[in-house]
Amino acid sequence: MNKEALNGLFRPKGVAVIGASNKAGKIGYSVVEALKNGKYEGDIFPINPKEPEIQGLKAYTSVLELKGKIDLAVVTVPAHLVLGALEQCGEAGVKGVSVITSGFGEVGDHETENKLVETCRKYGMRLLGPNIIGSLSNSDKLNASFAPVLPLPGNGALISQSGALLIALDAGTYLRGVGFDKLFSLGNMADVDFADIIEWLEDDPATRCTALYIEGLKDGRRFMEVCKNSKKPVIALKSGVSAHGAAAAASHTGSLAGAAKVYGSAFEQAGVIQATDLDNLFDVTQAFELQPPMEGDNLVIVTNGGGVGVLATDSAEKFGVPLQFLPKEMQEEMKHYMPEFGSAKNPVDITGGAGLEGYKKCIAFGLQHEWTDGMAVLYCETAVTNPQEIAEGIYGAIEEAGEEILAHKPITVSFVGGERCATAMRWLSDHGIPAYDDPARAISAIAALRQYARLQAAKAADSADTFEVDREKALSIINAARADGRDALTEVEAKQVFKAYGLDATTTLLARTEDEAVELAHQAGYPVVMKIVSPDILHKSDAGGVKVNVKDDDMVREWFRKIMENAKNYKADANIHGIAIQEMAPLGTEIILGSINDAAFGPTVMFGLGGIFVEVLKDVTFRVAPVSKAQGMKMQEEIRAAKILAGARGEAPRDREAMAETIAKYSQMIWDLRDEVKESDANPVMLYEQGKGLKVVDARIILKKK
Amino acid sequence: MNKEALNGLFRPKGVAVIGASNKAGKIGYSVVEALKNGKYEGDIFPINPKEPEIQGLKAYTSVLELKGKIDLAVVTVPAHLVLGALEQCGEAGVKGVSVITSGFGEVGDHETENKLVETCRKYGMRLLGPNIIGSLSNSDKLNASFAPVLPLPGNGALISQSGALLIALDAGTYLRGVGFDKLFSLGNMADVDFADIIEWLEDDPATRCTALYIEGLKDGRRFMEVCKNSKKPVIALKSGVSAHGAAAAASHTGSLAGAAKVYGSAFEQAGVIQATDLDNLFDVTQAFELQPPMEGDNLVIVTNGGGVGVLATDSAEKFGVPLQFLPKEMQEEMKHYMPEFGSAKNPVDITGGAGLEGYKKCIAFGLQHEWTDGMAVLYCETAVTNPQEIAEGIYGAIEEAGEEILAHKPITVSFVGGERCATAMRWLSDHGIPAYDDPARAISAIAALRQYARLQAAKAADSADTFEVDREKALSIINAARADGRDALTEVEAKQVFKAYGLDATTTLLARTEDEAVELAHQAGYPVVMKIVSPDILHKSDAGGVKVNVKDDDMVREWFRKIMENAKNYKADANIHGIAIQEMAPLGTEIILGSINDAAFGPTVMFGLGGIFVEVLKDVTFRVAPVSKAQGMKMQEEIRAAKILAGARGEAPRDREAMAETIAKYSQMIWDLRDEVKESDANPVMLYEQGKGLKVVDARIILKKK
Repeated sequence: MNKEALNGLFRPKGVAVIGASNKAGKIGYSVVEALKNGKYEGDIFPINPKEPEIQGLKAYTSVLELKGKIDLAVVTVPAHLVLGALEQCGEAGVKGVSVITSGFGEVGDHETENKLVETCRKYGMRLLGPNIIGSLSNSDKLNASFAPVLPLPGNGALISQSGALLIALDAGTYLRGVGFDKLFSLGNMADVDFADIIEWLEDDPATRCTALYIEGLKDGRRFMEVCKNSKKPVIALKSGVSAHGAAAAASHTGSLAGAAKVYGSAFEQAGVIQATDLDNLFDVTQAFELQPPMEGDNLVIVTNGGGVGVLATDSAEKFGVPLQFLPKEMQEEMKHYMPEFGSAKNPVDITGGAGLEGYKKCIAFGLQHEWTDGMAVLYCETAVTNPQEIAEGIYGAIEEAGEEILAHKPITVSFVGGERCATAMRWLSDHGIPAYDDPARAISAIAALRQYARLQAAKAADSADTFEVDREKALSIINAARADGRDALTEVEAKQVFKAYGLDATTTLLARTEDEAVELAHQAGYPVVMKIVSPDILHKSDAGGVKVNVKDDDMVREWFRKIMENAKNYKADANIHGIAIQEMAPLGTEIILGSINDAAFGPTVMFGLGGIFVEVLKDVTFRVAPVSKAQGMKMQEEIRAAKILAGARGEAPRDREAMAETIAKYSQMIWDLRDEVKESDANPVMLYEQGKGLKVVDARIILKKK
Repeated sequence: MNKEALNGLFRPKGVAVIGASNKAGKIGYSVVEALKNGKYEGDIFPINPKEPEIQGLKAYTSVLELKGKIDLAVVTVPAHLVLGALEQCGEAGVKGVSVITSGFGEVGDHETENKLVETCRKYGMRLLGPNIIGSLSNSDKLNASFAPVLPLPGNGALISQSGALLIALDAGTYLRGVGFDKLFSLGNMADVDFADIIEWLEDDPATRCTALYIEGLKDGRRFMEVCKNSKKPVIALKSGVSAHGAAAAASHTGSLAGAAKVYGSAFEQAGVIQATDLDNLFDVTQAFELQPPMEGDNLVIVTNGGGVGVLATDSAEKFGVPLQFLPKEMQEEMKHYMPEFGSAKNPVDITGGAGLEGYKKCIAFGLQHEWTDGMAVLYCETAVTNPQEIAEGIYGAIEEAGEEILAHKPITVSFVGGERCATAMRWLSDHGIPAYDDPARAISAIAALRQYARLQAAKAADSADTFEVDREKALSIINAARADGRDALTEVEAKQVFKAYGLDATTTLLARTEDEAVELAHQAGYPVVMKIVSPDILHKSDAGGVKVNVKDDDMVREWFRKIMENAKNYKADANIHGIAIQEMAPLGTEIILGSINDAAFGPTVMFGLGGIFVEVLKDVTFRVAPVSKAQGMKMQEEIRAAKILAGARGEAPRDREAMAETIAKYSQMIWDLRDEVKESDANPVMLYEQGKGLKVVDARIILKKK
């Protein structure tokens, strides 16, 4: 990743501002001002050939005067001057350039944008932007942007594809009390993208987690790889998830927004937490900045109000951490800390009457108990309690648990009330306890901490499977079809490719003559299915080109003639390869496996049940390929119709092991052949009961045009 | 509703505080203090036999000294003294009592609670509580509660079943900037409940809409009736919607929480907007306080930032108001008001470069255009704009549209940024424009305004259907079964009841002899189904008691003997009514109709497709009975499998008209027979293609025990 260049870009020893200005309102003015106001400790070199001095600093004609003194050049000159400026930066030994100027890819000028990148590559420089606000870092006292202030200090990083949003959220850190150490504006991502920065932040001591605002990724694969390997949580808000929104995003950034469902799957595969909106992005990031992941499902809710307790319970179910009743002995102990009409079941309702002591004892006892994996503390402002006292008491009880426990049991808080509550919550956040004005938000934040631990565990348990495959054979079949001038394989060819990847497709053999048909029928075993094979006949049934349940030699001969005749009547000049003789698979649960080439993530597998499930209910799930067998099992669990595979309504469970292996092999196939295959499917796959495997009954492969 | 008593309770001419105290910390102290601090303009009469004066006010020994001077008595004495106090109130001519004291139904003492109600009834008094905070009204300067302050003034009312939450939200009105005129604590709802207050508020000039926090309704029917008739929007946050949450709510308020899905349906039927959490309750209430409903789907989003525009677009789809592109001529006009790289499609992105003028022109033009039904204005704080100026500019442009337009085109706003944005948003809210810190919230609020208009339109278009039914016949069948000592009808009986309500059940006749069986088979028409009829044999197939596709007289005789024999072998002492001879309905799309008696709402209809749809996918929908044909059509549209009924995968559409009529008739049946029928179902109903009707193939009715 050229770490040195990124160090120069984000942690520079000297900064030049190309296009620095004395005119307030100009971006070249704002950047110099921001650097000064941020109290940057390195040298600031304003570059402006017409001015001797910029805002009290000596100005320079060109970076060439400053060879070796500059790590970062912030470029604010008009678009047509940027390329020249970058050349000079390269010659002056600049390590990174931050191009604030807009007017490149986002308005259609990809050519110039590409030239900027080439120039940077030539000199080993990294480029942030163009079309950005800049980058900001509290720990480096570096505001290399035209945002007026550094963000409220904190332990998070925020990377935004929208500059306008970044500048607004920068101000928002103060309003919301959620601090960040670093902010990055990505703009057109001509060079530096999300993955580069997430990777670079791995070694940044000031960053505990990273929040992202994503409109569309260019290289989804690398993004996933970096996030998968990251030891720091990544939280992403993906915009453009609606049909109309995707269109709006495309017009806005010029990048392809990709299918929302695929993004969701990719995030999960990479261990990325997906935020639902801006509030949620802040809420969850705050939780990750201040609290550890939650390693188990046992959430304890302590409350002084039944109402907020029930609301939090509803939220716990909604956000995937359904509450359990506390173990009997915990309940018995807790009961001592509350009035008789309190409840120790969970939520632990100490009632308004218990006061601060009740909170303290229930929190201290609850946290130290081994059953507990995490805790949400709720407070409803009352006429007789002081929120600040409650906050301090809660904090004291939490501290009592000791570092060891607090290192792996997260806590979130919600105070419902007025200004005094807001002040007390800010005090709690400042002391490391994330606090929210609505119990639903406190629960959604701790649920994200739980989700992160789950994804980490799934990642740790997962391992890539390798299968013996005959890639050469698959390629030779594909090449033969290409040589034939085709970009769609016939069913016979497609099944040969499937079989080369170990997929259990029905034996399907191509007969060119009646005699051959009889011979192959014996090979496949009666009864057989006969189907016309012609690249010119796609709808075989419509052409009278299919006969099922063919039982003996005579029938084979009879139907060989009929099908040939039908095909010729259907399309006189069709190129007919012959007739496929196919073993007849018994009926089973119909499955569809499909693949798409997602704009951001490339080969991606779709899994679902056939018929109404896919066509009416759209009950399908995606995974970026390749997919492990373990993931193949998970895909079968996450569709709504999962119970059918598990054996619903008195039927035996389906052979999910075999299905998982098939998903894994199929995903390996589309990944291996990604340069050749545009899309493919196995539809239907007949899935039988446990131990009895499956059969791919029909297969389709469409090639990429070359 | 005894309006005079409610007037006395909520708009009293004189208030007594029974149990008034000079000791700070006592509730009897807080209530007197709250009345004084609230600047109540009527007379305050502290009642305390031991003190001559309470907080500077002359104290009285008993309300009996004050006959005719008191409308409202706030009761704070210990539980065992409350009944006596109410007797005295009655004698003193008090109109309403607000019983703050707890220790009644919520701790199991329903007996005393009932006596309180009886006493009030005796004297024509209404009772709020017990176990409450009290009630508060800004316009009456009445803080008859132990909450320390009146809420931030506004145009909403808030009714809460949780007192602790009410007191916290009271303080929260100031923090959130969402004002309320009135707050009501309901507590145990021994007498006054949600419906009473919603009805009373109809005539309250200070209330524009009402927000509810509901744990569980006691009389769901009356609640629905009142909400349906209300001309003011009602917004409800229902807690206890999770399985665990329902249990927690039950332990908390002692009322039955009811099934979450039924509440959802009931709210929709009654035109009530359901809030998702506390933040959302405030957000949506603020929108209804300040803005009109949105009468069409054409939402225009105006933004200065592409990022927030895309986020808002995603939200619009999520919350049920998917964006449309603006008509060409609107786009052309809007294009004049923004830089070249802006977008007038929708979101209308004036970009950061357009400044205040762009906002003003796009808002003014957009609002006056007939295409527009509502508008969301988004602003991303930038380095070069002043949020307050933007707010004032936006407000000016909105005002320009004039009263007539603003009376039916709602507007919400979101400013994303820092403290300056927060201040500007508060200014906007104070000027009647609801503003939110996240675009998702602004969109969710305007989507609620849209949803309300949709529900109002659906209510207006709906009308109860009446069918000719033979209730007497149904009752006579039921009574005969009861006389037989049974609380389950046989299939033959159940179908007779169904037919009495005009439901098209398969002809099912009871044969007691072989000869009778043959005769009835002719009546039904071959082929027929034969089934054992015995209240002692529930699983007929297991008992060898079912034979389908019986084709002629000989087969009838043969199977009559076999089934009888099987039944006797299965259960020697079974009470066998005979054998049902049933017409064999052709296969169709399998439907399930069912009914439950919901704890809050009573007879409720469930509709869904049979088989995996109900068993695996739980794809069902509910309506509180009776249901109109129009609602029956809607039920068919709202299941996930709706497309199957519409004619998926090349099949003809199903006869949805017939299905709707059947739903309506079935719902009328369970409503008419609500005192008799505990639960029932029609499973399966075979639904045929359009014009071909349906057949109820099996029917079941379980009676209420008497």
